[in-house]
Amino acid sequence: MESDWRALVARDDIDVIDVCVPQALHATVAIAAAEAGKHVLCEKPLALNQADAKAMLAAVRQAGVRHCVNHNYRRVPAIQLAKQLIDEGRIGRIFHWRATYQQDWIIDPEFPLTWHLQREHAGSGPHGDLNSHSVDLAHFLAGRIETVSCLTASFIDQRPLPGVGAATFAAGAQADSPVCGKVTVEDASLMHVRFANGAIGSFEATRFAAGRKNRNRFEIYGSEGSLAFDLKRMNELELYSRNDPEHIRGFRTILVTEACHPYVGRWWPPGHTIGYEHTFIHTVADFVTAIHTGGAIHPDFSDGLRVIAVLEAALESAASGRQIKVSSIHSPEGVSS
Amino acid sequence: MESDWRALVARDDIDVIDVCVPQALHATVAIAAAEAGKHVLCEKPLALNQADAKAMLAAVRQAGVRHCVNHNYRRVPAIQLAKQLIDEGRIGRIFHWRATYQQDWIIDPEFPLTWHLQREHAGSGPHGDLNSHSVDLAHFLAGRIETVSCLTASFIDQRPLPGVGAATFAAGAQADSPVCGKVTVEDASLMHVRFANGAIGSFEATRFAAGRKNRNRFEIYGSEGSLAFDLKRMNELELYSRNDPEHIRGFRTILVTEACHPYVGRWWPPGHTIGYEHTFIHTVADFVTAIHTGGAIHPDFSDGLRVIAVLEAALESAASGRQIKVSSIHSPEGVSS
Amino acid sequence: MESDWRALVARDDIDVIDVCVPQALHATVAIAAAEAGKHVLCEKPLALNQADAKAMLAAVRQAGVRHCVNHNYRRVPAIQLAKQLIDEGRIGRIFHWRATYQQDWIIDPEFPLTWHLQREHAGSGPHGDLNSHSVDLAHFLAGRIETVSCLTASFIDQRPLPGVGAATFAAGAQADSPVCGKVTVEDASLMHVRFANGAIGSFEATRFAAGRKNRNRFEIYGSEGSLAFDLKRMNELELYSRNDPEHIRGFRTILVTEACHPYVGRWWPPGHTIGYEHTFIHTVADFVTAIHTGGAIHPDFSDGLRVIAVLEAALESAASGRQIKVSSIHSPEGVSS
Amino acid sequence: MESDWRALVARDDIDVIDVCVPQALHATVAIAAAEAGKHVLCEKPLALNQADAKAMLAAVRQAGVRHCVNHNYRRVPAIQLAKQLIDEGRIGRIFHWRATYQQDWIIDPEFPLTWHLQREHAGSGPHGDLNSHSVDLAHFLAGRIETVSCLTASFIDQRPLPGVGAATFAAGAQADSPVCGKVTVEDASLMHVRFANGAIGSFEATRFAAGRKNRNRFEIYGSEGSLAFDLKRMNELELYSRNDPEHIRGFRTILVTEACHPYVGRWWPPGHTIGYEHTFIHTVADFVTAIHTGGAIHPDFSDGLRVIAVLEAALESAASGRQIKVSSIHSPEGVSS
Repeated sequence: MESDWRALVARDDIDVIDVCVPQALHATVAIAAAEAGKHVLCEKPLALNQADAKAMLAAVRQAGVRHCVNHNYRRVPAIQLAKQLIDEGRIGRIFHWRATYQQDWIIDPEFPLTWHLQREHAGSGPHGDLNSHSVDLAHFLAGRIETVSCLTASFIDQRPLPGVGAATFAAGAQADSPVCGKVTVEDASLMHVRFANGAIGSFEATRFAAGRKNRNRFEIYGSEGSLAFDLKRMNELELYSRNDPEHIRGFRTILVTEACHPYVGRWWPPGHTIGYEHTFIHTVADFVTAIHTGGAIHPDFSDGLRVIAVLEAALESAASGRQIKVSSIHSPEGVSS
Repeated sequence: MESDWRALVARDDIDVIDVCVPQALHATVAIAAAEAGKHVLCEKPLALNQADAKAMLAAVRQAGVRHCVNHNYRRVPAIQLAKQLIDEGRIGRIFHWRATYQQDWIIDPEFPLTWHLQREHAGSGPHGDLNSHSVDLAHFLAGRIETVSCLTASFIDQRPLPGVGAATFAAGAQADSPVCGKVTVEDASLMHVRFANGAIGSFEATRFAAGRKNRNRFEIYGSEGSLAFDLKRMNELELYSRNDPEHIRGFRTILVTEACHPYVGRWWPPGHTIGYEHTFIHTVADFVTAIHTGGAIHPDFSDGLRVIAVLEAALESAASGRQIKVSSIHSPEGVSS
Repeated sequence: MESDWRALVARDDIDVIDVCVPQALHATVAIAAAEAGKHVLCEKPLALNQADAKAMLAAVRQAGVRHCVNHNYRRVPAIQLAKQLIDEGRIGRIFHWRATYQQDWIIDPEFPLTWHLQREHAGSGPHGDLNSHSVDLAHFLAGRIETVSCLTASFIDQRPLPGVGAATFAAGAQADSPVCGKVTVEDASLMHVRFANGAIGSFEATRFAAGRKNRNRFEIYGSEGSLAFDLKRMNELELYSRNDPEHIRGFRTILVTEACHPYVGRWWPPGHTIGYEHTFIHTVADFVTAIHTGGAIHPDFSDGLRVIAVLEAALESAASGRQIKVSSIHSPEGVSS
Repeated sequence: MESDWRALVARDDIDVIDVCVPQALHATVAIAAAEAGKHVLCEKPLALNQADAKAMLAAVRQAGVRHCVNHNYRRVPAIQLAKQLIDEGRIGRIFHWRATYQQDWIIDPEFPLTWHLQREHAGSGPHGDLNSHSVDLAHFLAGRIETVSCLTASFIDQRPLPGVGAATFAAGAQADSPVCGKVTVEDASLMHVRFANGAIGSFEATRFAAGRKNRNRFEIYGSEGSLAFDLKRMNELELYSRNDPEHIRGFRTILVTEACHPYVGRWWPPGHTIGYEHTFIHTVADFVTAIHTGGAIHPDFSDGLRVIAVLEAALESAASGRQIKVSSIHSPEGVSS
């Protein structure tokens, strides 16, 4: 057991580093690990900004090590099944992507000003924290995002400092009083995008949706059919097929717990569900397998960089009130995809 | 029975005119009816553009007649209940409005170029046809919209002319060939808005969502609770309350079929549902009652004008790629609300 | 307008009588109508007992008039679609029928002793009132019931007489006191049955299921697929097909609002729902059409009699604690089916 | 690692034995473990019959060791929450229990005659395998069952022997041919019960419900409210409360993933679901804690015996066509509860 990451990276008996330090340290640790010849699994989002992400991508490429970003929701069996159905042609040409990622944990105005609500520590609010998941899924399932327009909102500007009692706060909290601080990240983000393939998409990320504890939901509409997924019911996938006979068309709820479904054959008998942690187990298993076999693994750092490019373009749009083109991605050494 | 609307308007034995001619004729008929001293019920959207809508509003005010726009979904009992719950304070300060209105009837590329798909006849596509409903509901339930950004999409540019056989089309259809015509309205529209009260909102209208036959759905999130409605299940309303004890909070599905619910006491025993046409019956009943009692009736032409102002601003945004402020509404005689 | 049914039956200008008097009078009125040469539509259940039902059947047969029982739920489009899917072979050999019909209107112990709760007026409680619907649907969709076992329950024995104030009741109500009366029908009924085709089935009828306002639900399981219906969402039907590819099997929710669905082509565009009263409209339309064309109409009095035979056998089972065979149905003139 | 259970039971360094051998061996192993002074956790159902179960209960009592039956579904957080809500009085006097446990894995007539389908190996079919779960939950949540009536069904009598190719079977399988064998357990079971507290209940267990992979569902209806649970969505519980204001009553879906919910505080942040295996983890944790603290643990062998008494009475009812009283439970040494 090491408590110093530098000591860990220096060890000879370790082949893989999982970078799960705070986001602002991702680049430092990941680059050091790559330089030490370790394969690198990095928690999401890949980095605080595109510059860091590009440096990380350059480092792993230079070192020739395997790299993966833990956008863990790709490893939900139902989402892998969604990808399989798209690849089978069951959705056809995609017209619409719709994503929401809603939580409700800061509705109470007395919720304190934790680090999540300060730009210098968190980079951004739900736009980065939650939309990073949704944008990765959109790239995985619907295609590459080309242009973005974004609108953000702040609902509560001042919050009590952590440790300040609610009573004190209620009694005397003024803006800029010693017990109060300013929220410097957005409370919610709405994005509209165009994909390279002509589809359009919407994203909504918020921490102000009462009753939505962790609602990571997407819908995909295409020329042959449609898909819908909701993390609350992560063992289910909804499919509509225009190829069914007309009188029996309808959204069907596939219980993704059969041996024929992705990952499921390794778990329980039919009809027995799995939980959130299995997404991490699947990611680790896939990454180790990819290292062992030399096979492909996604999302890699290039995919992670692309997510950040979209999120950054969106914040630029929110600031300017204009649609923004997502920058094409070039690394010093010709990063592309 | 009259087949000439002018004859109808001229009759002495008629007090109320229901304007259900094509949208491009709304202004002509409604103004004539008002000038003849008739109370006017007008199908939605009120007019093709703000100029017409303002003229209509001026006419009914000048004539001193009652006026109403048939945004019929306000008369769904579950939606009236939503309004009641908001007025009771059960939702609190509103943070988010989310609306979708999805259909799927023109996904087939061989669906012909009917009048709905030509700007000169229809004004716009789902943006006007469907979003007019959603914007009216947003004004009713969430507040006044102040700024808009919008993105529209066209998925299928050319379609066979009506009456052209599918075989002919498949065999020889070229762009601009005699059997083909150009689609001149949008196929889908995405809007983001800010409300005067600080809330933000999203709207999506499309005819390309496979499996969504007529999905008029909205969600409202506030500081005390949340609401969700889906027209497919028009006798139901979902409510989440942050004021429930913590361990039993959850979205509850209210079956809006009790005598204590709006309109329902006039229909069946508990648990028996009503259908789409009842929204029209309720509208007519409410309008006639308002005429009889002199009580208020909404949405009136002023409300209808406000919907059109939002939709026009959105199209301006879609064309320019910029956020647009919704014009404030002034009539020659100081129309306001 | 006639207020005396005998005068109505005697009129020459009337061809069809709809018997919607209290159940105890069905036989008298229906037989008189038949003898006067009228076609007869009779509300459900057909009669208080088999003897009456047989007499009614004999009368309409003797008179040569058309006859129909208004088990109106057969005329829900989704239920007609269920029948169609069964006839198409999509369900295969039927193994299981499951029906529940739950209400909750007499849970309050202060709900008064209305006529519904007295055997001499109502015949029975939910067993007759609600299970008559479910048994008719079982005969329509799953096959003929051969044996029955039944268990009934009484939860509240004494209730205040109608018009007795709640305060009086709460203060002084004793069993057999002047303000109280005895409930003489069952509060709930559970039935298990075997069908002639080897399937088994369950039925549950109650007025003590809090939150179930009028939950008329059934499920059918067969060798090829399954069906589920819930009246609360009467425009929907759930279908599972074992003939779908294995990885995309799931219960699909068919929105029964397309022109290709039973009855729907006569109503609204796709996706627009209908309500409870449409079941009555469909029944009347079908009956009048059958009279006009001479075509078949079901459920007729023979079907209605069969429902009553099952319900009577069940009550005999409940009294004896034994399985009971449903009597085969013979009329004086050889009634059979 | 021991491969001989006798060696395991003899070891001094082991305090707890988990009996997960086939059911026919439960009694032998559990009694030996108890006699060796081990605490015993036994998989469900406790034993093949009441005689064995009583001997097991006597053995653990004599030895003074702790004992537990792994009816694991009691440890689903949502089911513990259901118990808590009942104990809080939110359901009131219970009127109805409804349980279904449906699977679909032997619908195919070519599914082979595995040991599950032979009485000498499996004791019974879904009646024992699935209803044992449901009966334990009924005892936990609704009360003690007093009388039972039961109906069983066999849909497919002959099946190919394991290892016989489908082609051979299809070509030449005759009843009693060398490639075929007789199914000697029931394919489905329906039970009706009366509880000691006056409630009534229904149970349905089957392996012939197409599309129901592992549908362990129950509903409870009481004087104050109702509950519903479905294992497919094991992180959810539905609650209806008659104590809500009338116009906002409805079934609410509680997402049982908050820190205030049973077990959940030890797992993920709000809104993150857990899976099937967590029920086993919770059972082991609770059993070890009970051993450590001396606190109560249920279901114990006495509870396990009571389940078996109900199942046996039901089979007696199925054979005789009569309602059967569940035997009161007396051990040689006065087992009771």
